[in-house]
This record gives sequence, C-alpha cells and structure tokens, in this order.
Amino acid sequence: MSNTFGQLFRVTTFGESEDRCEILSGVFEGKTLGTPLTMMVRNKDARPEDYREIAGKFRPSHADYSYQAKYGIRNWQGGGRASARETIGRVAAGAIAKKILSTFYPDFEIVAYVTQVHDIVAKIDRSTVKMKDVEKDIVRCPDAIAAKKMISLIEQVRDEGDSVGGVIECVARGLAPGLGEPVFDKLEADLAKAMLSIPATKGFEIGSGFAATRVRGSKHNDEFEMRGGKIRTRTNNSGGVQGGISNGEEIYFCVAFKPPATIALQQKTVTTSKQQSELAARGRHDPCVLPRAVPIVEAMAALVLCDHALRQRAIAIMDS
Amino acid sequence: MSNTFGQLFRVTTFGESEDRCEILSGVFEGKTLGTPLTMMVRNKDARPEDYREIAGKFRPSHADYSYQAKYGIRNWQGGGRASARETIGRVAAGAIAKKILSTFYPDFEIVAYVTQVHDIVAKIDRSTVKMKDVEKDIVRCPDAIAAKKMISLIEQVRDEGDSVGGVIECVARGLAPGLGEPVFDKLEADLAKAMLSIPATKGFEIGSGFAATRVRGSKHNDEFEMRGGKIRTRTNNSGGVQGGISNGEEIYFCVAFKPPATIALQQKTVTTSKQQSELAARGRHDPCVLPRAVPIVEAMAALVLCDHALRQRAIAIMDS
Amino acid sequence: MSNTFGQLFRVTTFGESEDRCEILSGVFEGKTLGTPLTMMVRNKDARPEDYREIAGKFRPSHADYSYQAKYGIRNWQGGGRASARETIGRVAAGAIAKKILSTFYPDFEIVAYVTQVHDIVAKIDRSTVKMKDVEKDIVRCPDAIAAKKMISLIEQVRDEGDSVGGVIECVARGLAPGLGEPVFDKLEADLAKAMLSIPATKGFEIGSGFAATRVRGSKHNDEFEMRGGKIRTRTNNSGGVQGGISNGEEIYFCVAFKPPATIALQQKTVTTSKQQSELAARGRHDPCVLPRAVPIVEAMAALVLCDHALRQRAIAIMDS
Amino acid sequence: MSNTFGQLFRVTTFGESEDRCEILSGVFEGKTLGTPLTMMVRNKDARPEDYREIAGKFRPSHADYSYQAKYGIRNWQGGGRASARETIGRVAAGAIAKKILSTFYPDFEIVAYVTQVHDIVAKIDRSTVKMKDVEKDIVRCPDAIAAKKMISLIEQVRDEGDSVGGVIECVARGLAPGLGEPVFDKLEADLAKAMLSIPATKGFEIGSGFAATRVRGSKHNDEFEMRGGKIRTRTNNSGGVQGGISNGEEIYFCVAFKPPATIALQQKTVTTSKQQSELAARGRHDPCVLPRAVPIVEAMAALVLCDHALRQRAIAIMDS
Repeated sequence: MSNTFGQLFRVTTFGESEDRCEILSGVFEGKTLGTPLTMMVRNKDARPEDYREIAGKFRPSHADYSYQAKYGIRNWQGGGRASARETIGRVAAGAIAKKILSTFYPDFEIVAYVTQVHDIVAKIDRSTVKMKDVEKDIVRCPDAIAAKKMISLIEQVRDEGDSVGGVIECVARGLAPGLGEPVFDKLEADLAKAMLSIPATKGFEIGSGFAATRVRGSKHNDEFEMRGGKIRTRTNNSGGVQGGISNGEEIYFCVAFKPPATIALQQKTVTTSKQQSELAARGRHDPCVLPRAVPIVEAMAALVLCDHALRQRAIAIMDS
Repeated sequence: MSNTFGQLFRVTTFGESEDRCEILSGVFEGKTLGTPLTMMVRNKDARPEDYREIAGKFRPSHADYSYQAKYGIRNWQGGGRASARETIGRVAAGAIAKKILSTFYPDFEIVAYVTQVHDIVAKIDRSTVKMKDVEKDIVRCPDAIAAKKMISLIEQVRDEGDSVGGVIECVARGLAPGLGEPVFDKLEADLAKAMLSIPATKGFEIGSGFAATRVRGSKHNDEFEMRGGKIRTRTNNSGGVQGGISNGEEIYFCVAFKPPATIALQQKTVTTSKQQSELAARGRHDPCVLPRAVPIVEAMAALVLCDHALRQRAIAIMDS
Repeated sequence: MSNTFGQLFRVTTFGESEDRCEILSGVFEGKTLGTPLTMMVRNKDARPEDYREIAGKFRPSHADYSYQAKYGIRNWQGGGRASARETIGRVAAGAIAKKILSTFYPDFEIVAYVTQVHDIVAKIDRSTVKMKDVEKDIVRCPDAIAAKKMISLIEQVRDEGDSVGGVIECVARGLAPGLGEPVFDKLEADLAKAMLSIPATKGFEIGSGFAATRVRGSKHNDEFEMRGGKIRTRTNNSGGVQGGISNGEEIYFCVAFKPPATIALQQKTVTTSKQQSELAARGRHDPCVLPRAVPIVEAMAALVLCDHALRQRAIAIMDS
Repeated sequence: MSNTFGQLFRVTTFGESEDRCEILSGVFEGKTLGTPLTMMVRNKDARPEDYREIAGKFRPSHADYSYQAKYGIRNWQGGGRASARETIGRVAAGAIAKKILSTFYPDFEIVAYVTQVHDIVAKIDRSTVKMKDVEKDIVRCPDAIAAKKMISLIEQVRDEGDSVGGVIECVARGLAPGLGEPVFDKLEADLAKAMLSIPATKGFEIGSGFAATRVRGSKHNDEFEMRGGKIRTRTNNSGGVQGGISNGEEIYFCVAFKPPATIALQQKTVTTSKQQSELAARGRHDPCVLPRAVPIVEAMAALVLCDHALRQRAIAIMDS
C-alpha cells in the first residue's frame, strides 16, 4: 500500500481513524529542521460500538467489500484507511506546502470553495474570491444567497436520512510559468491524481473542462497578448496550464463529489458470509462532505504545486 | 523531465516527432526477454518548413510559451515532446499491457470509443460494446447514426478552418476485485493522472462522474446482492471502483478533449520578442483528435490496470 | 530529505532521538491490516544538557557541519536524524520483513554477527552459524575466544576515552534463485546502498569482496554441479548473487564500521562562528558500535530481500 | 526490471549487446532541449556463432543461470542485459552529468584510475592526479612503473587463458558541502549502489574504508580547522562525506572488481537440461576489465553527484 505522495515534497500518512494533533518530530526552537515533520492526531472520540453491525455486512458504495477482497482483512471500526480522517495528514502537510510556495512566489494564494451542492449552483467571481469570503459561512460557499439555500437543503436531506454531493472549485494565483512537465507528469495530470485520491470524488476538470467539448477551437483558444509588460492570455480556458506546464495565468479546476455512502435509510446488501441482508447507518454521518472537503482540495493542490515548484527549482536556468 | 510512467509496469518514452516502428531490443526468438522492450518510430514525413513561422511566434493554447518559459529553449519543428506523436510509445506499451492482463484475467477486455463530438452525443450500451463495433467507422463511434453526423460535422469544421472537441468513454471488463490502493494510489486517481497526461484532455469522470453531484445517496449507492454465486452490485455508479480499489464490476470512465489548438483561422498572438502579431496554421492539422485518441485512452488505461495487477500480485495472499 | 526505503516493501522513518515503542496504527485484533504499521518510540532518557557545548562547536567526523551546511539549521541535542537512534525504525520494519520472507521461503533465515573488532578477527563457520550463537555474549560474536578478547579491548578503549571499529558479516539462507534485477537494481547494489545508509559504515563487500581482486578467474569462478537434484555451485565466491540476481546459494556480505566519532579525548575543532576551539565529549558515548549494529545490518538486509521478493512475485511465471 | 537510475537526473538504458552511437532525440540546433536525450548504439560486430555452445550450458559465475531462473528465458547471444555493453549508456549519460556539475561548480573535476591489478598496487597521489595522467597508458593507471607491470601481467594471464581483477579509485573535487541526505539516501549509500550496479564489482569503500576498522577514533576523526577562510578538515578519512552529506572535501572511494568469468580454460558446469558438462570460452574475452571500467566508475559517480546536486538545488536556501 503506497502511503506517500509527491516526488520532492513528500507526504506520508498513517493511521486509521484519528482526531487530535501532536507534533512528534521535525521542529526545533520554533523552526523546521529539514527532518521529517511528524504530526500525530489521536482519535479521542472513536465509537467502535457504532460500527459493530457492519463487522459482518458490506456497506453499499463503501470500501468495505473491495478492501476485504484486496487484503483479506479490514478494520470495520470506522472505515480504516478509507476513512476521511486519513485526510487530516494531507491538510497538515498542505499548510506547510503553502508556506513554502509563499516563500517562492510572494503573490501566491490558493482558494477553494463550494460552487455547487446537489442542484444549487453558486455564482462566484473566480478571479477575486478570497479565503475570508469562503470562511464566512459554514458551507464554505462565498455566494451568500446560494450558501443559504445549500444549508437549508443539507438540513432537509439530513432529516430525511439521505445525502447529497456537489462541486468544489479551486484557484491558485501568483505562480510563475514553468511548473509541470510535458509528458506523464503534466501539472493537470498530477492535480487530477491528487483530487481523485480524495475520498468520494468522481470527477475532475481543469480550465474549461467538459464544457470545452462543446466549444470550437477558434473560440476556445487563449490568444496571447502583451499586458503589463508580460506575455499573457486574453482568456483562460486552459486553466493556467498549457501542454502540462503552467503559463503564469490563474490555475483553476473543479472536483465532483458524490453523495456520501453512509445514510440512515435502509439499504440492501450482503453479509460477509454471502447472505442477503439489510443495513441502515447508525453513528455519526455527514449528509454532505463538501464543506469539510474544501481544505482537503486546497491542501492536495498545494502539495502538487509545491512538489513541482521544487522540481522546477532544481533545473531552473541559473541566472533567472 | 519525467518520461516514465508506472511503478512495476514501467514505460519510458523519448523523441520529439516520429512516425515508423522498429523493434530495437527485448525480443529474442519471438519472445520477450524481460529486458527493456524498445521500439523506435522514425518520422519519415517531417515537414519542418511548415513550422518555420512558429519559430518566432507562440501558438495560442499550444505548449510553445509555457515550454519556452520552463526550459528556455524549444524545438519549434513540430511540437516537440508536446506533440501527440509522443503517444505512439504509449500505444505500443499498452498493447503489451493488454497481453499481460489477458494472461492474468482470461475474460479481460478493454474498449474505448467516442461518445460525443461537439454537440453530437451517441447512444451506446456500455456493457455490450466490443472493439469491432468501434472499428466499424473512421470516427470510432459505435452508434452508426451519431457516427455519420460526427463525420459530417468534422468535415464541415475542417472546411471552415476550425476544430471541435468531444468525449471518449472507456470500459474494462473481466478484472478481479482488489486492484488499486486505498490512499494516494487509488485506481481512479492513477486513471485520472493517466488520462490527463494525454494531450488536449480537460476532464475526467469515473462512474457516475459529475452527474453524481445531482443524485441523492439513497439513489446513488450501489447495493450489494448475490448474483451467480458472487458478491455483485445491482447498479454501478461507482464505475467499478470503491475506496480506490476495484470491486469486480465493469470499470468505466470518461475523458473530455478540447478542440485542437491548431486551426487555419487567423488568431492574435505575440512573437518571442514580445511583439503583437497574428498567426494562421499552415501544414497538417486535425480538426478533431477524438478518433485518433481512442487507442491512446485504451492504452493508458491498460498501463494503469497492468501496473496495479502486478502490484496486487506481489502482495496477494498466497493460496488465492 | 528522503526518509523512505524500498519500492514495494516501503519503510518511512521519522524523528530525531527516541527510545520507547508504541504501536500507533496498522494492527487490528492481533493481525496487520495492510495499512501503514506505525510504531512510535519516545525517548524517555534524552539529556539535552549533555549537548549544550556542541550547540556552538562542530564535532569532528560527525554530521554537525555538513548537516548545517545543507539545511542551515540543526538540532544539536543528540545528533538529529543522523543519530543512530533513527535506526530503531529500521529494526522494527526488518522484523516484519523477516516474517514475510519466512512465509514465502519456509527455510529462510538471516544471521548477522561481529567478525572483527579493531585487530581481533573471529573464526566463524558462515554456513552453520545460528542466531542463538550470536546472542550468547554481549559483543554478538559467535567465536567465544575472540568475543572475550573483543570485550576486553572495548573496555580498555573505553577507559582510555577512545573508540574502535570493526566488521559485521551477514548471511541469508533458504532464498530462491531469481531475486534482484540485472541492471541498476542488482541485489548486491541494493544491499550496498542499504548497508552504507547505516551510520558509521565505510565499506561493503559481497561474496569474495576485495579479496577477489587477488584471485585468478580460473580459481574464483563458481563452477556449477548437480547436487540434491538442483543446480548448485561448488564454491560461492559470488556470495549467492550472479549478474545482480540471486542463484539460490547463501547470500553473504561484510560491512566495515569506523570507530565512533564521539570520544572523551580532547580534539581540535572550530566553532559555528569559525573560531578555532577544542572539544571533549561528555554524556553517553559508545566506544564500539559493532554489537548494537548487528540487528541493524540484519534488518536492512531483510528489507532489501523482502522488497525484491515482492518484486519477483509480481512478475513470476504464473504456474511456478 | 528497473532500467532507470536517479531521481532528478534520470538515466534509462535499453538493449542487449550493442556497439555504435547515434543521437535519436533531445538535441536541436546543437543544444539539449530538456526532452529525453536518446542515444542509440548498434552492435555492428555481434558474433552470435561464438555463443552457440552456451545456449545449452550455464557459464560459471555468469548471470546465465540466475537470469534463466528469474525470467524463464535468456538471450544467450552475448550476455543480454548483463553484458558490460549495457554500460555504454551510463558513460554517455555520465558525460552530460559532468557538464551539468561543471556548470554548478566551476572547479568540479572527477578522476578515476586503476590502483591495483591482481597483486600489483600502484602509488598515486589522490589529491593531484588528473585525467590526462590516467589516459597516458592503456591500463589507465597513472603510476607509470606499476602500469608497466600491470600490462605485462595482463598479457601473461591472457596467454594462459585466465583472468585477473583489481581496484579502481575515484576522486571528485570542487563540490560544495551539502550534497546527500542524512538517512536512506546518504551520498555514500547512493555511490555504493551505483558502483555495485556495475558488472563484476564485489566491494566498495568510501574514505578510509575497511582500513578504518583497525584505526582508533582519536586517530580516525577528521579534526576541523579554518583554512583559506573556510571550515576544512585536517585529514579526510571521511572521504568527503559526513553523516551522508558532503563536507566540501575531496570525495573519494574504491571499487573492487573480480576477475572476469569468461576464461579460455576448461571449466565444469551443467547444461540447461541438468547434465554435468564442461565449457571453455570461445569468442572475444577480456582478461582484465579494469582499464575499460574506469570511465564507467567515473560516469556512475557523476550520475549520483549530479542527481544530488539537483536535489540540493531544489531545497537550497534562496539567498545562497
């Protein structure tokens, strides 16, 4: 099982279901040492009794069955490595990646936000939205009107024992051109992998994404112009990446999240001894993961960007 | 520049713009040796004179500018490593990956096909479509009526000097459960990276994809049932992957392709010496890459599946 | 900083100077889960005050200066990542690697032992020595007479405030032919890297090693013969590896350890502010690391062998 | 089979037994492009008929048997991937690595030379020897008297149908402190792996090497002093590397080569059908590989140093 992400900026996570943070190594007198920065989060609120029933039943659209098929064993107490709690390590690492990126690119900023919950679509100006706009409400959607509707919908869905999905968009500004590689390690390829490695994701779009399939080339192409003394594009359908390499424009992409698999409604399933059975979730469950996934999307994007920034630094022409 | 893909089944490509195939190493008396299987394709039809103009101008939505920004030099004669011709190495490697997968899983088959060109959407039964259905017409769309419309549209667009994009779907059948990993190297994550590493791709969806964002959990979840003595899912919104690991159902996903950047119409751009200029493509250019991209999608998927099949073999419980 | 070792059997260590073991993740109901097996060892006996003086002085032949030159910062309280305590993670991982190897190869065993301390050279029958012979005395040398002399010498050297080095040999038996790769990842190459990654090592020999340089080919070659129905070699100057791949014979190699750099005697050095100065070690220091290095050598060898066993399993011919 | 070496400066080799060089990709108008620089060498002098006999017999101390055991097939026409000809790719890559290192470190130089053939040991001043001294005679030993004796011995051994081994030393000067990593990827660990990946090598020593095992710490430690305004060591038993990281002193190491396995004398072996047999080499064979191995040692060292120089560049403090 590979638990490591990144080539030069490398993150390794461990653990199954955890909750509280402690720094174990890598910091000395308030500074990082270059040594592995280890943070441990203990889960002080594990409730294995909530999971007793699912010891013997495969939850629909969870990793229970496929995991069992692969490893021949699974920790049924909370989702194991497939638990969204695994992502806490990614968020911690992302925070450091962002610090490094800010050192390399003083104008660097990265903002992720919810643009859609179920059928509610927000209107957001991607080029001006700031993190403080995102953190204004609990649903992490900077369009106040849409946010209100999303909160209502999520509450209603919770009451009905059901769940909903949605879309998160992320934009990174202030990066130099030259990040990414032209063949297998294209910047968008590594971003896609990073995003699809987040639990519950089903899709990824860079720039114009699937909408690009319905636009003609003459309209889709991003023409170059001189602006502020720099080579810039007039439009940005490319999403800031051309041929796998950043072109200095905003990098932006969208991620699709499915509705969470854990619902209170009764569902059909089979037991580990292959008997037909039924199951309804007890214990904690979240009817919509979007708001909690926003910092994870941001973190994973930062990991990819930081890794490529370091890779570019290694080969960059010396006097530039 | 990383030119290698895969962890156990590893592919390394080289070269800029080539055309004809020759086996250089790795085969002895008609069998592979385990040594690097090297295939070289020489481009016997390079036309550098077609590219003369673009030596000094950045083509919109091509890799010219970002590549130059990264490496400080570029081969303007044909697109360099960003040329779609680089993908020939992937297709050759994919053919071998398919052979290996067929040895491991006798019922294995993989089929990719065009499901959309611009606004023409085909109707295809994903579970029954075969490669021979795909190869029936030049547009590689197994819906004959849609295929005819697609061909007309592509001809019209070519005449107008413009270009169009579309969507390719790919389905892999007959694989065992257990391929993929639960954290960073999820099967869908590696597929996403593989697909977004293909030139001109803008999006990726596994299973229900972006549509999943508008469906409730109670409807989206794939309930388990016993079928033919096996644990199966009733529906397959998961796309054959749960928690990063294959569950034995069909693996299917979609890839969005933008309209090709090279068009005969006049476009605004800047020169390498930062002067405003204009550009219209001369030389060969393809108004729609979808038909030619089908084998590349199939090949990249095979590379990912073969790599994970080998990884699973390394750790698989011995008596299974 | 790369803190990960191995391709399929992967070990990641963290931390600076630690001492007590706790299992954090990866075990459930007494079995490993396939998830990262995390063990944490807290140092309950750190004595930072012993290190106060060296905050401002570079210890000769320690990593202090080179580490500072690389990272611009160092944790002077105990050696940081260069501390031999880092190796505890390797020993823990090695124990698991040995378990896996025993599952794959029922006759597998691996034994390391001290063959030389300073000028005292032990006589040991490499083909019959067992771990219980090694653990008979504190110096981990299975030749009782030499062991006694070694212990005396180490005590004398300690009294004089000085230190001594020596040689550890390691032998692995019961492995199949076919482990290792023919080009860069030769089995002996990966063993050499593993050994030279242990603190205080200065040399590595596989099989006949440096002595091979003074023997003629006609005498050095390991002739093949049939023995017990198997293809075997009469001699084993190859050390069980030919062309980078194990041949089924005993794999054996030697590792040279320098005398520890920390000594109580006064030595010349410079301060971090580039002033000439002197230094004599206070605090704990070990006049000879050989006995404590034996399990580390064994563990690192097991990591390499297990990694290659897994790699071979992935590609092994199916019906064998 | 892994055919790739290095993390940032990556080399991939292919092919079995080849002889003539051609640049296939990566160069444009006399400059490298950043794309894979592919060089192909065709073997214009293959003599498969010389190998006919060994199709059915395992050559003693060759890779024939272990290779067959691993892959179930081998190319018996010339040694396959275990052929020393595989190293031509390494030498070509090493030449580029040296160019890059010279750009980063203007005083950089690397020199390898033969210090021992069988029992003839040369006297060489490691700190002053230059490549032109090495290239003075065919045996690549800069001690003229020893060189003469070596040449005589090699001729005599050839006449007797036998072979001899020896030792190559390599020294790299002019590198900055800070190359290498403190844990698994220690500079000496990567050098050890690189050297043991060269065919026919049996041992590696950095700095004082195995001799360190017989010296006390008080004598072995490299005391620091100020010299020319820089922190320097008085002695260099460390071989320029402390705690896995270069300290700015000369990096030097030794590599042991066994006598070549191919000899004209009659030897016992078994056939592929497990019959006892005999074998005497026909065809070309070299009684001593040392002179030809000198550029390979130099190249592999350059690959490791260049890779670590790039890795250090990626993380180096910005204003230094």
